[in-house]
Amino acid sequence: MKKEEAIEHGLALVNRSTIAMLGTNDNEGYPNIRALIKMGNEGLKKIWFSTNTSSKKVAQLQKSPKACIYFVDFDKWEGLMLIGIIDILQDPESKQQLWREGFEKYYPLGVNDPDYSVLCFTAKLGKYYHNLDIMLFEL
Amino acid sequence: MKKEEAIEHGLALVNRSTIAMLGTNDNEGYPNIRALIKMGNEGLKKIWFSTNTSSKKVAQLQKSPKACIYFVDFDKWEGLMLIGIIDILQDPESKQQLWREGFEKYYPLGVNDPDYSVLCFTAKLGKYYHNLDIMLFEL
Repeated sequence: MKKEEAIEHGLALVNRSTIAMLGTNDNEGYPNIRALIKMGNEGLKKIWFSTNTSSKKVAQLQKSPKACIYFVDFDKWEGLMLIGIIDILQDPESKQQLWREGFEKYYPLGVNDPDYSVLCFTAKLGKYYHNLDIMLFEL
Repeated sequence: MKKEEAIEHGLALVNRSTIAMLGTNDNEGYPNIRALIKMGNEGLKKIWFSTNTSSKKVAQLQKSPKACIYFVDFDKWEGLMLIGIIDILQDPESKQQLWREGFEKYYPLGVNDPDYSVLCFTAKLGKYYHNLDIMLFEL
């Protein structure tokens, strides 16, 4: 597998995925993983999520912005790990851009709810898995 | 949701899952995630995987045994995060116990292949997610 091929297949996986796994560091040095809805992406370089400001993951990311995003297709034995940094955004523009119908369920005060934050992940490294193949690449 | 209920549903999720996400710490302080085939479990307390001794995850676990295992059911909006420690086992008994038909594809020298290791995860904490509910429990 060539690097270009890995990036192409990895990008196709990200584009068709609605859910990603987010890895953060907790206070005691353990990795923490949870599934999140992918709200948008710009190639493999940027990925956006929405979250409650009061959530554990925001507290963890405030202490350490180092994060991992993992996309997986169980049926195709295909996975993509992205390593990078997460910025917690609370500016009105970012919040407005990510806002979707029904978000009041999570953020009762609406788009300006202080408990609504945007997570912007920026990748620096990717690792694409398919069957027994692994390809590492910089981003 | 009661704690007993969360543990019961979490256990049902683990029992029916064939794949889990494993989180480890890399050398630069980033969490790393990849999917692995679950080879066995003893309730929520112990989970077994097989891996190549030469793999990156083994090198990472040798430096820091702190790990996270995540099970997810995308259709049911259900997830279980387990936090704990991984022991890397290379004793013949553990390797024999986990050996499956077809493993020669991964470990050409057979059950005694030095590149074949068993990962034994021991959980200390669980976090069960279902829709908007979250329940944390000790193990």
